[in-house]
Amino acid sequence: MISKNQLKLIRQLGQKKYRKQYNQYLVQGEKNVLELLNSPLKAVDIFATQAFINAHQSQYPHTQLIEAQEEQLTKASTLVSNNAAIAIVNMPNAALPKNNGLILALDGVSDPGNLGTIIRVADWYGIKHIVTSTDSADAYNPKTISATMGSFVRVSVSQVELPEYLQTLNLPIYGAFLDGKSVHKTQFSGEGVLLMGSESHGIREQCAKLVSDKITIPAFGGAESLNVAMATGIILDNFKRQA
Amino acid sequence: MISKNQLKLIRQLGQKKYRKQYNQYLVQGEKNVLELLNSPLKAVDIFATQAFINAHQSQYPHTQLIEAQEEQLTKASTLVSNNAAIAIVNMPNAALPKNNGLILALDGVSDPGNLGTIIRVADWYGIKHIVTSTDSADAYNPKTISATMGSFVRVSVSQVELPEYLQTLNLPIYGAFLDGKSVHKTQFSGEGVLLMGSESHGIREQCAKLVSDKITIPAFGGAESLNVAMATGIILDNFKRQA
Repeated sequence: MISKNQLKLIRQLGQKKYRKQYNQYLVQGEKNVLELLNSPLKAVDIFATQAFINAHQSQYPHTQLIEAQEEQLTKASTLVSNNAAIAIVNMPNAALPKNNGLILALDGVSDPGNLGTIIRVADWYGIKHIVTSTDSADAYNPKTISATMGSFVRVSVSQVELPEYLQTLNLPIYGAFLDGKSVHKTQFSGEGVLLMGSESHGIREQCAKLVSDKITIPAFGGAESLNVAMATGIILDNFKRQA
Repeated sequence: MISKNQLKLIRQLGQKKYRKQYNQYLVQGEKNVLELLNSPLKAVDIFATQAFINAHQSQYPHTQLIEAQEEQLTKASTLVSNNAAIAIVNMPNAALPKNNGLILALDGVSDPGNLGTIIRVADWYGIKHIVTSTDSADAYNPKTISATMGSFVRVSVSQVELPEYLQTLNLPIYGAFLDGKSVHKTQFSGEGVLLMGSESHGIREQCAKLVSDKITIPAFGGAESLNVAMATGIILDNFKRQA
């Protein structure tokens, strides 16, 4: 069962300030906890229903799964559903990526669900690391982790002073704008940075001036814009079709 | 202001059974109501804040905008934010699409937000009509309309008996599977059907057996799957790059 103190900690880890203070975050739901168990990441505690334990404990003999009632998990969880398991995990110390294939950079992408969806599609296309501006969504927000559908174990995310960081790289920087060159007609280099801005503000001036190649997803109909996660996925597909 | 009866109707139109009964639906929020005003669709009633009216009435001199307090709109709205305006709109009688370019077909896509995102990206790629199985999400669900970001005015959606409908078409049917031919290596015909299944069940047997070309978005990393809206956008981009 979940002790009072553990319940308090879980509740606290729903908030960014406590995640920073304890250097820990939550992984919730069957799919995400299973991905965690299959990953090199180490959990501090994993609470799970008896059904989850019966189904999975035998595959992870060296990991202690602490039995909890589903109502208890639901009460503790920050999610409305998928309460088969909750894990408390230590944050890794991710090294910043250097010239290795394609780096994804996000400027002011503040919606946690969008960030999670971006992590998932980045994982699909084999991107190992994402850098974000310091005002982007927190990669350890429970909504972000949930939206990654397990991809949080394979993609690390670092918040950085984005303009300064981009200046340290000696790579082409492809920036997504509404008036760039069509991605259908762009020859992508195997290495580089894909820089995406937020839906409301786009790529801001400090980063925009560092862009070497302005690119665009060509439009064929009436929609004014695409969701930033959708746009990221479509551009990654265009990068990778040439790789 | 919004009368008691109008408030009751707005509340009812949040539910599918009343949308069917009255053949009307809601359009909510500044962006979506502005797209509505710019479209040929006719609203029955439009309620808006004084600020919205001041900003936009002059461009639409023949449309009556009924002034309402923001608190009243918030109270009436099924959305938590964006309560600058609410419109009640008559459902159109959309004709079923026949052999005209690319038709998008959805089998069992039951999440209203996903459907709205698909409508938005379909609009980006110039798709005018979507057909869905009868158990797919309702295109007039407020969450769907909201997620379209205005694209609901340009893309019509028909619920059909999908296997029967697909059999009436004399077109290639491209079905998205995890084990199909890479979309990077597929020569798409200018006309055809793109058939997408749900994330949980994929394309079901009755439709799967009608597929002429199994296609796949090639994976380069560890994610097991993509969100159905994301996958739809990426495949549409691959279709259109050849068009």
